Amino acid sequence: MKKIAVIMGSDSDLPVVEKAMEQLDKYKVPYEVHVFSAHRTPVEARDFALNARSNDFGVIICAAGKAAHLAGAIAANTTLPVIGIPIKSSTLDGLDALLSTVQMPSGIPVATVAIDGAANAALLAIQILAVTDSELESLLEKERASNAESVLLKDKKISEKFNK
Amino acid sequence: MKKIAVIMGSDSDLPVVEKAMEQLDKYKVPYEVHVFSAHRTPVEARDFALNARSNDFGVIICAAGKAAHLAGAIAANTTLPVIGIPIKSSTLDGLDALLSTVQMPSGIPVATVAIDGAANAALLAIQILAVTDSELESLLEKERASNAESVLLKDKKISEKFNK
Amino acid sequence: MKKIAVIMGSDSDLPVVEKAMEQLDKYKVPYEVHVFSAHRTPVEARDFALNARSNDFGVIICAAGKAAHLAGAIAANTTLPVIGIPIKSSTLDGLDALLSTVQMPSGIPVATVAIDGAANAALLAIQILAVTDSELESLLEKERASNAESVLLKDKKISEKFNK
Amino acid sequence: MKKIAVIMGSDSDLPVVEKAMEQLDKYKVPYEVHVFSAHRTPVEARDFALNARSNDFGVIICAAGKAAHLAGAIAANTTLPVIGIPIKSSTLDGLDALLSTVQMPSGIPVATVAIDGAANAALLAIQILAVTDSELESLLEKERASNAESVLLKDKKISEKFNK
Amino acid sequence: MKKIAVIMGSDSDLPVVEKAMEQLDKYKVPYEVHVFSAHRTPVEARDFALNARSNDFGVIICAAGKAAHLAGAIAANTTLPVIGIPIKSSTLDGLDALLSTVQMPSGIPVATVAIDGAANAALLAIQILAVTDSELESLLEKERASNAESVLLKDKKISEKFNK
Amino acid sequence: MKKIAVIMGSDSDLPVVEKAMEQLDKYKVPYEVHVFSAHRTPVEARDFALNARSNDFGVIICAAGKAAHLAGAIAANTTLPVIGIPIKSSTLDGLDALLSTVQMPSGIPVATVAIDGAANAALLAIQILAVTDSELESLLEKERASNAESVLLKDKKISEKFNK
Amino acid sequence: MKKIAVIMGSDSDLPVVEKAMEQLDKYKVPYEVHVFSAHRTPVEARDFALNARSNDFGVIICAAGKAAHLAGAIAANTTLPVIGIPIKSSTLDGLDALLSTVQMPSGIPVATVAIDGAANAALLAIQILAVTDSELESLLEKERASNAESVLLKDKKISEKFNK
Amino acid sequence: MKKIAVIMGSDSDLPVVEKAMEQLDKYKVPYEVHVFSAHRTPVEARDFALNARSNDFGVIICAAGKAAHLAGAIAANTTLPVIGIPIKSSTLDGLDALLSTVQMPSGIPVATVAIDGAANAALLAIQILAVTDSELESLLEKERASNAESVLLKDKKISEKFNK
Repeated sequence: MKKIAVIMGSDSDLPVVEKAMEQLDKYKVPYEVHVFSAHRTPVEARDFALNARSNDFGVIICAAGKAAHLAGAIAANTTLPVIGIPIKSSTLDGLDALLSTVQMPSGIPVATVAIDGAANAALLAIQILAVTDSELESLLEKERASNAESVLLKDKKISEKFNK
Repeated sequence: MKKIAVIMGSDSDLPVVEKAMEQLDKYKVPYEVHVFSAHRTPVEARDFALNARSNDFGVIICAAGKAAHLAGAIAANTTLPVIGIPIKSSTLDGLDALLSTVQMPSGIPVATVAIDGAANAALLAIQILAVTDSELESLLEKERASNAESVLLKDKKISEKFNK
Repeated sequence: MKKIAVIMGSDSDLPVVEKAMEQLDKYKVPYEVHVFSAHRTPVEARDFALNARSNDFGVIICAAGKAAHLAGAIAANTTLPVIGIPIKSSTLDGLDALLSTVQMPSGIPVATVAIDGAANAALLAIQILAVTDSELESLLEKERASNAESVLLKDKKISEKFNK
Repeated sequence: MKKIAVIMGSDSDLPVVEKAMEQLDKYKVPYEVHVFSAHRTPVEARDFALNARSNDFGVIICAAGKAAHLAGAIAANTTLPVIGIPIKSSTLDGLDALLSTVQMPSGIPVATVAIDGAANAALLAIQILAVTDSELESLLEKERASNAESVLLKDKKISEKFNK
Repeated sequence: MKKIAVIMGSDSDLPVVEKAMEQLDKYKVPYEVHVFSAHRTPVEARDFALNARSNDFGVIICAAGKAAHLAGAIAANTTLPVIGIPIKSSTLDGLDALLSTVQMPSGIPVATVAIDGAANAALLAIQILAVTDSELESLLEKERASNAESVLLKDKKISEKFNK
Repeated sequence: MKKIAVIMGSDSDLPVVEKAMEQLDKYKVPYEVHVFSAHRTPVEARDFALNARSNDFGVIICAAGKAAHLAGAIAANTTLPVIGIPIKSSTLDGLDALLSTVQMPSGIPVATVAIDGAANAALLAIQILAVTDSELESLLEKERASNAESVLLKDKKISEKFNK
Repeated sequence: MKKIAVIMGSDSDLPVVEKAMEQLDKYKVPYEVHVFSAHRTPVEARDFALNARSNDFGVIICAAGKAAHLAGAIAANTTLPVIGIPIKSSTLDGLDALLSTVQMPSGIPVATVAIDGAANAALLAIQILAVTDSELESLLEKERASNAESVLLKDKKISEKFNK
Repeated sequence: MKKIAVIMGSDSDLPVVEKAMEQLDKYKVPYEVHVFSAHRTPVEARDFALNARSNDFGVIICAAGKAAHLAGAIAANTTLPVIGIPIKSSTLDGLDALLSTVQMPSGIPVATVAIDGAANAALLAIQILAVTDSELESLLEKERASNAESVLLKDKKISEKFNK
């Protein structure tokens, strides 16, 4: 199975990004985690991207805040799918990171998820691998069913409480 | 090769969405185009999503404006990767469609591209198929090289004009 | 009397949504409370909407945050009036939920109230039932008068404190 | 049948608001149209609201731009359901009108529809009357079916064009 | 001397609004404080505005949050200058109140100050009275000089600390 | 009678600002018009402000776009009431000018009107002079009545057209 | 004298960026113009930045729209001052480019000017060179004086027209 | 070596601004710190700017919140490069200060850094001095290398933790 790369622009993003690793662990998808900054370590970021496919990665997840260039900088150097997680920082509630991540110019897409949406970034990466992996696909279907189950249990609990 | 689905919420989105078909044609990736509305034809939208994998689709692209629920409604009914194109409509410059598409709750990701970013949506879909398709991958690499070439030609032209 | 449905997209919305139940209790309007997610339990959400009128509901209140599709997804499957409460979540101060709820396409309206405006959602539902229920109407008028009274008492207290 | 009132804050709103009258005509719901300004004719606006129920109105639709107070000013003087249409004016793309209409304080709800969403305002008013009017309800259901039909025709046309 | 009226839409605005009273006390300008809601006590709000000039008020200050209609509702019923203080409430950081207060239609101006800018609202009211009151004017000039002095003292302290 | 000053930051603001002069002409209030830039002619702007009161001005209206500092720069040098008109320029729809004008720090208020609200700026200035000028006051009242009349005529015309 | 580099992310930015060259021509500052894309020609962009100082550049101006990473990508590879011009593109009025350019992480500053502010970017670059170049400085002072003169002429013309 | 001036509009900005002094200390660049308000001490602010060059300053850093006019007011009175730090205050998350600082009119640029970006403001000032100071330049290069090193150490630590 292809590996998934999880890159964050700063180790301060780790508490948000860990939600991605939890999902990847749950699905037993192999992954690597890195801290590369588009601005402070541009060489390492680029080299990682250039070699990602030959290093057997299938998808690259990038998390960054503020003027979040990381996902775009990685996407500029690989044709692997790149998923961007805009991170909320101390001002503007993540709107800066969202626009910096999603508004990519024609030719270099970044698959953007919600602000601080690390769990969904991982799920999207897994869904991408599952396009040609029916085992992963059935795990995803099971998880969907189990999530639905858990919502229905909450519905049961709350409707019992209120609907006498 | 898996097919790509291109769904728009309204036929008024077609002038923007056609940029996606142009890319898919260029890469000779098989695709289907549909008009389904999350709100006006919810049954057809859902049925399409439920059967998409067995109908041999690999990725679903959804374009919608305003309270753009289409990508989310499709994503809720399939574990295939779903790409959302927020469409700019008559007010708010597409911000409503962007937030309605990208801010998905945990469990149901939508891979969101730029407002009106139909070409990138198609490229992202192709990149997803190329994870396991080395022929597509080398086409993507060639196109990247050709795009770079065309930027460098423009650089040459403009720098000759200004740098005497 | 028709019943009012109160649906929330996640049980984490309950602390906000409870303000709706308080109003409904005050007016002794029968109601049911549910947790349905447009994305995690789309089947149950749709089925509820499809059967709401025959199950004797008159109005459906939907509360959801982020890319808040719940009200729209319910409205797509019923011609009963649907009221949307945009819920403020961890980013963007509820603007995402507001735009996702209110900017509905032509044909499928959602009656949107203020961000976190659960009490008003309930009052609006009661006002809708009161169009043809003069008893409810006079309760609403009484409550309005009593609210005005309470503002005037506060005016009295504050103007006595400051206006010597 | 109760009448529906359509009030606009300025006659310059008429080109947008006419979409409401078209819907009301289609459903043969009786209505009255007025120009009242919350700020320029506050007396007439208030008097209209105070007498609306006894004058046999069931729902009041209010359209206004900029600091759009009209819906709130009407809602303050009646317990009938009040629907607000935020009108886009020359700046801020209607965001000012949207926030001024929807962010009502507790106790006085306004059922807000999309910016310039006049057709949906009328449909919402009709849905409110249809809670207790099964004939209107079946007209609404028919119209929904016919709208779905028209989307499916567009789907057919577009998918035939692209899916060879 | 004319009196200044300070009206707040809810007694929860008092902690912000008190900054206005502090300024008015400092300048010994007579004033009255009231709680009137444009929506919950529209009659009292309007009556206050209609009689304000004959009751010897010169300026009316209005503080309100969310869909802040109070200043506009007062301004619609008097030709006295009306000053609006947009109050920050639990969502949207006061942007809703700012736009609802400042974006008034032609004919009915509201003199809007900063979000939560109660002290400045009072100073503006005093400046208005000072147009024809040279005693107040020289108090304002003195206060300006004293404020400048205090900034210069802070400059001295900070520059001594850092500029060795 | 005190004069009103109308200052614009650039002569490109004239088409918007002329609406102010029309109002001042209508009320026969004496005024002067100037082009001073807070940034390009800071000396003249400041000198005008410093001498405005002794030059018999009662109110200063300032119109500026983008990082609109003009009103604040004038207000920093006079204790006369200063009214700010945020001008919409080529980007951001006037939001930059609105925030730059209204969000003044404590001590230096600017009475801000709507984006491009030149007519209201003039009316507010006249209302300020009318605090102690009963003739102006009765002109304002007459104009209000005439405006109301004109709205009611439009109401008559539109309601006759639609309410058969 | 050091040269100034003017880089745009796309040749479609040229009509805006030309305002920079006009200023540089006026001050007879040597410059080079290039089209480099952070995403489509990342190698050339980086190489230009790495060699800029040894190629005798003193300041680098970067213009880009949407998720405008160009200025940041250049700044990551040089310690020369980098000036960013956010370019307004087809959606969001340049807010995306502004936030993507200005919200840089600690360590890698970008000196950001107004949206589409190409003339000011050039002036800022010239001001930077003028820190140690008294001839340039006196040209800047002269230009300031001449700009002031031109504002005063406009003031004269407009005040003569209106102030009879 | 030229000195750097650090001016803040209020001493309440000190906790943010101190990050600038830390950087200046690290690079041993001489500097002065001041508190000047564009609105409360306009004379001192202007005089400082007018004399800055002859007082041997090379760059002026200005920090201000809300309607942040300080950088613009300083820039209007000097041709030295002026760097603006928009300060986040109690509302709007610093967006008001950002737009008031960056959206300067043609002719008077302000080099704007991120909201609360005091460290970057100092680095930008140092980069400006380093254009003609090769010692400073090599310190900047060393610091860049050391920052990269520290990111790589974090990468090592985090990738060891996660990549077993």
